[in-house]
Parts: sequence; C-alpha cells; structure tokens
Amino acid sequence: MTDLSSHAAIRAALAALPEPDDAARVAARKRDAQLTKPPGSLGRLEELAIWYAGWRGEARPRVAAPQILVFAGNHGIAAQGVSAFPTEVTAQMVANFEAGGAAINQLADLAGARLDVHALDLDRPTADFTQGPAMAEAEACAAFARGWGAVADGTDVLVVGEMGIGNTTSATALASAILGGNGWAGRGTGVDDAGLARKEAAVARALAVNADRTGLGVLTAFGGRELAAMAGAIAGARARRVPVILDGFICTAAALTLWAEEKGALDHCVAGHLSAEGAHGRMLDALGMAPLLSLGLRLGEGSGAALAIQVLRGALACHSGMATFSEAGVAGG
Amino acid sequence: MTDLSSHAAIRAALAALPEPDDAARVAARKRDAQLTKPPGSLGRLEELAIWYAGWRGEARPRVAAPQILVFAGNHGIAAQGVSAFPTEVTAQMVANFEAGGAAINQLADLAGARLDVHALDLDRPTADFTQGPAMAEAEACAAFARGWGAVADGTDVLVVGEMGIGNTTSATALASAILGGNGWAGRGTGVDDAGLARKEAAVARALAVNADRTGLGVLTAFGGRELAAMAGAIAGARARRVPVILDGFICTAAALTLWAEEKGALDHCVAGHLSAEGAHGRMLDALGMAPLLSLGLRLGEGSGAALAIQVLRGALACHSGMATFSEAGVAGG
Repeated sequence: MTDLSSHAAIRAALAALPEPDDAARVAARKRDAQLTKPPGSLGRLEELAIWYAGWRGEARPRVAAPQILVFAGNHGIAAQGVSAFPTEVTAQMVANFEAGGAAINQLADLAGARLDVHALDLDRPTADFTQGPAMAEAEACAAFARGWGAVADGTDVLVVGEMGIGNTTSATALASAILGGNGWAGRGTGVDDAGLARKEAAVARALAVNADRTGLGVLTAFGGRELAAMAGAIAGARARRVPVILDGFICTAAALTLWAEEKGALDHCVAGHLSAEGAHGRMLDALGMAPLLSLGLRLGEGSGAALAIQVLRGALACHSGMATFSEAGVAGG
Repeated sequence: MTDLSSHAAIRAALAALPEPDDAARVAARKRDAQLTKPPGSLGRLEELAIWYAGWRGEARPRVAAPQILVFAGNHGIAAQGVSAFPTEVTAQMVANFEAGGAAINQLADLAGARLDVHALDLDRPTADFTQGPAMAEAEACAAFARGWGAVADGTDVLVVGEMGIGNTTSATALASAILGGNGWAGRGTGVDDAGLARKEAAVARALAVNADRTGLGVLTAFGGRELAAMAGAIAGARARRVPVILDGFICTAAALTLWAEEKGALDHCVAGHLSAEGAHGRMLDALGMAPLLSLGLRLGEGSGAALAIQVLRGALACHSGMATFSEAGVAGG
C-alpha cells in the first residue's frame, strides 16, 4: 500500500513512478514500419500506438478494458456567484450519472468502458479559497489517495472526468498559480460577463491569500476534492503502467499539479481533446501536448477524453491488426 | 432505375437529389436544448447530430448500419513516374482488403461497418490524361453508376474510400481544374522531389490538353474509374438520404466534381478528417467544410472517414441517449 498521507509521502510516490518499456516501444516502431501502408501515412495514429505499446510493455497491444472515473465535489467558492448553475446540480448530475442519463454514460457505452462515479462529500463543500486554503493537507491527500486507489485491476486505459459546480474557478486558480500570467478564466458552464468578472476577482484574491506554489500546495489550496482525486487517479494509473487520456480544462488543471511536482509525471498521458474553454489550449501548450480531438466540447465529465478512446482504439486496431508487406504479398514503397 | 448513362443524364439526376427534412432538424434542435448539459457544451457533436437527424428524417436517430465502399482503379498517368509505388500495388492492396489485412479493414471492424471493395478493371488502366481524356464519357458514366448503385439498402452512413497508384495525381488535376490556382500537388504515398516535379508537370500538361471544365467533364478527363465511382456513390447516397463522411484528398477531389455541378450537392456530406496531403485543407476551405479529425493521416482507403464514424456515433449516442433536464430532475442553467 503506497503511503499517500501527506504531501511529502505523495512526492516520494511520484518520484518512484515507472518509466515506459523501451524494448516494447522499439519493437512497436519496427512493426509499424512493416505494415501495409506508406511510411507515416497513419500520422498520429502511428505515434499513439507506439506510445501506448511502450507503456503497456507489449509490441502489439489492444485496448480491452477502458475505465472512466468521474469524481464529483462541491466548492465553497461557488457561493461567490462564479457559476451559471446552483450547487445542487452537482448531486443531481451524480444521480444522472448513476441513472445512465448523462453524456458520459453514452460515451462510456460507445467506448465499451467501465464507468465509476465517486461523489466526494458533496454535503460538505471545500472552504472558500478566497479566505484561505480550500482543504487541509490531510483532506487533500485523502482525496488524492481515493483517486489513486480507484483505478481498477485490469484497466488498460484510463479517462478521468469530473462534476462540480464552481470547479472551473478552482481549475483557473490552479493554472494561474502554476503557469502564471492572466486570462485563465473562462465561462465554464456559461456564466455571464458579471459572473466572469466575479470569477477573475475570486482567483486574484485566492492567489493573494494562498502562498504555497508547489503542485501539491496549489492542489490543496485551490482544488476541490474531485481535482485532488483526479490528480491521484492520473498518478495511480502511472503506478500500474496504465496510459491516461486527459480530458479538458479541469482535468488538465489537475494534471498540471503533478507536472509541477515532476516534469515527467504526465509522460503516460495524452491530451484527448482541446476544450472550448478558452485557456485549455495554453495549458496544453505548456505541457507540450497536442490534442487528439478538437470539437469544441466544454462539458467535462471526461466526455472529450471518452470520445478519444475511439481514436486510441483505431490506432491500436491498425497497429496490431494490419498485415505486414511480406504477410500480404504487397510490394514495399 | 435512375438514368446515369451520360453527363446530361447525371446532371438531371443531381438536380433531382432530395433536401433534408426540416421538421426532423427542428425537432432535433429542440431536443438538444433540453439535454442534461450546458447549452452548446458538446460543441460540434451537437450540430453533427442535428445535421444527421435532418438527413435521416428522425429527431433521435442512431447509426446502426455504416457502410464503407472502397473503389480501386489503375491510371495511365502512373507510367509517368508520379508515384513511389508500382501499379501492381493496386491489385495487391485489393487482395489485402479482401484478406482483411489493410488499415481500412481494422477501422471498419472498429466502426461495426460493412466493407465492400470494388476493383474497377484494374488490368485496363485509364488513358494517360496528359495525352487526352482519361476516360470516354460512357466509361466515366458507367463507373459513376457503379458507385451510385453500390450503396447498400439499409445503410445509414456512408464512407467512400479508394486505392489506385497514381490517383493523387488524378485528384490534383481535378482540384486544379475546378478550383484553379497552383500548388495542389503533394507527395501522395511518398514521392521524392523529382517525382513531385513530374507530377506537377503532368498536371500542367493535362490541363492544357483537356478543355472541359464542368464537374463531370473534369471527372471524365482526369478521374480514374475509382474517382468517378466515388462521386457516384456520394450522389447515390444523397438519393437515399444517407449522409456521407468524406475522406481525404482524393475523396474530396471526387466530391468537388459534384459541387462544381451543383453547389448544394454535398450538403449531406461532412469532412471526416484533414489529410496531411498538403492541399486538402484548401479544398475543404473552398467547400466551407471543417474536418472532424485532424490526425495527420494521408493513407486513403477511407481510413480517416472510417475513424470519424466514431465521432458521429458519439454525437448520436449523446443526442439520442441522454436524459433531458426534466427526465433527470436536474435544475436547468
């Protein structure tokens, strides 16, 4: 059992995360060069398959057991009028997830993915981070550990999603604290101009009253429980050599906190999509990641990443299923 | 039985193609506004579902029976050294399609799609279009009719792909003739600088010796049989109210010939992906289409469009499967 009970313990766990299997990656690259297609003609599907092969330690892998984890949390900051929806919607949407009525349910079915929903103390919102840290260290670490432990045995690709009224403000504060600069706030679920101004003001106050700028420090100060759990799940997946498809603005903000701790901590992650939430692209640029999809989604729940599972499946279907030139009797280029 | 035996007959058929069902489109838009998500938060998936609903005449449709048609042809122009591969590869790849070893086989399986491969007189290449038209009118019309008739009963979305050594040169000539300007030639399967120069020179000569600039005229002059069949299949799908996902450079060039005849002829089409074949994006710009995927593919076979079936499936899964705010008891925004 990995000790994740303090920032120091989590830092030790992050430093011990595994690296990809170079032999499998080399074997996958060699196989790719022999497939019945002009070299490079499958574009990003080729690099995606080779990347996945390295993490799974197999030259010819498939995705058989995708898992989608959705974490839900409530935020003290929501009281500041930063969202277009009331906080009751968090629990209502959790019920919708459980009843199968949300977008993520449909996209999980399409991907043949297991979907697990974790509601994290919804009746006990985190503290308003314009007054001090959203969570105590132990509380953030417990949420992180919940995420780390939520990755199922046998999962071979993970998507991490969220629900939490107010959490684009939380994510905005995370990005602002880690990457610096301005303009990180967006309209989230559809806040109006006044709401956007309240969001920006809230983030500015939050940065002024919370000084810790380490990845775990900002996760504790600004993250809701669901963001801490997402970071934990992303790291926990790496511990099991499970590649992760990142979702949009909020998921990437949670991931940023790991990257702020260890620059290589997201090497097992790929950006599933580019969110319409304006500053998401800047986050991905900072991480050096190019999104697989760019369809103007800004829903969260893991929706964009869940759709991107199909791109990964397509990449692996080609990589692992195609004939080689010699098998097919096709003249090479 | 639609008469497609001459350019004039095909023009009459194109003029009679059906329009989408406005009532279904309005009903789908209304449904979209009631689903448990912030308005617009599924981005392009929303418009894609509404577009599809209009063509299928149902407010809440699903994709149940996708079909992928791959047409193969051989080109007289290949003798001019415009490709990195010998012409024997066309037939070898058809055998690979039939044996299940090609990329399109894997992507068809992923999409749950029926795959039909039509090899069009491979032992009888079209004429070298630097000397005169590639096909006689009757020959082009027969290939067009073959494509029109290849759409299966019950198909609810169509992907049209191709195989034909030399056919990026054919597609380049089509785009040059219809859209004008220079720089349409790309590297196809991976031709070197000298091959690219030969390709550009061949297209220039082709344009000089073939004067007809109507859509069907250029299809006959520069198209291989597989391009004519693709155009026929795209139009034939429209006749059956079957939406089409366009593939890359060659498929879009074939589609351009329909658009050159009737500006609305591609309203039932969506661009599946942006090809890495350089000028594809300029074609899509001319058509006013934004691609669903942009993954650097340049394989043909229908591969990028086949992968994009999953995006359409995702859009319809959400649109047709999600709960409404009132069904789920979620407070609206």
